[in-house]
Amino acid sequence: MKDLPSSFNLDPSSFIPDEYDNHIQRKLSNMKGQYLDQQAYAAKLADKDEILYQVYEIKRPEIEGEILHGISIVHPGKVGDEYYMTKGHFHTVLETAEIYYTLQGKGYMVMETPEGNFAVEELRAGRVLYVPPRWAHRSVNVSEDEDLVMFFAYPGNAGHDYGTIETQGFRKLVLDRGNGPEIVDNPRWSPVES
Amino acid sequence: MKDLPSSFNLDPSSFIPDEYDNHIQRKLSNMKGQYLDQQAYAAKLADKDEILYQVYEIKRPEIEGEILHGISIVHPGKVGDEYYMTKGHFHTVLETAEIYYTLQGKGYMVMETPEGNFAVEELRAGRVLYVPPRWAHRSVNVSEDEDLVMFFAYPGNAGHDYGTIETQGFRKLVLDRGNGPEIVDNPRWSPVES
Repeated sequence: MKDLPSSFNLDPSSFIPDEYDNHIQRKLSNMKGQYLDQQAYAAKLADKDEILYQVYEIKRPEIEGEILHGISIVHPGKVGDEYYMTKGHFHTVLETAEIYYTLQGKGYMVMETPEGNFAVEELRAGRVLYVPPRWAHRSVNVSEDEDLVMFFAYPGNAGHDYGTIETQGFRKLVLDRGNGPEIVDNPRWSPVES
Repeated sequence: MKDLPSSFNLDPSSFIPDEYDNHIQRKLSNMKGQYLDQQAYAAKLADKDEILYQVYEIKRPEIEGEILHGISIVHPGKVGDEYYMTKGHFHTVLETAEIYYTLQGKGYMVMETPEGNFAVEELRAGRVLYVPPRWAHRSVNVSEDEDLVMFFAYPGNAGHDYGTIETQGFRKLVLDRGNGPEIVDNPRWSPVES
């Protein structure tokens, strides 16, 4: 972390930054309870604890005025009928946005607010998505064989609240029940008691 | 402007967004006093008031927690020996950063702080540049024939202070004195009196 302007390059084929401060690898075992088909999850995990997605972060002070940023890569695959996806989170400071520029692949951003609104937006290369303040968000890769790669940026003071989504899930799921991606209600969705 | 998540696509060849709220076109006549060679500037302006750069902005509330964003396109060309460039600015709220992802072209970001630090970073496709809080910034296109195209994002409350740079200029210029881009001291730089 430095207070001088700084740059990094994205590898033209993998989009992995040539400099970064933090590399997060989320495996199947990190997604306990998140997938609809718990039997498929257990069977898959018994076979191999696969890496589902990776995040390359550039460190900056976690304060207002700074912009945290990096690259997220969701690999292709499914747990039962459900596509590989990120954990998804609210920002701890709810009134903070996030912006995504999709570099490669195709997928969906699944989003919802504490007030009960929900939205699902398409992700594909050359598309910019704005997630306004208050919207929890999860990215889902619906490609058969290609990584979903995104550049992301959000306010330095946002913070991550993973717990709410871990407990209640998202209202919508993206499944493949034989005809490609479908957006369906999550039968296991239940709000955190307040 | 809406409080729902929203997306736009970038045209694969021009990178112009298929939806935007504000389109700024900066012409030669908007850059009075900014180029080193004032005679070349006057002669060029007498010939044609060319568009030097364009910005496509997405509107969001100008408050903390939001991220303002869009696409900037600097056309290729020179005024005398000096490459086409943006006006450049400090943020009104000095303690706010900006981030750039270069989509096409090649150039430089010329930067400086009120404290007297300066930096010049290379811009090229697939490169991410972080401009930390306090750094004024100007983009310069050094290609002979290609637009310099960048995706930018900055905090909603940042604001633009163009006046300081209009008065004092940047400490460094990017000129072509016959051997391609050179970074040189600006002989006309003089600090705003405080």
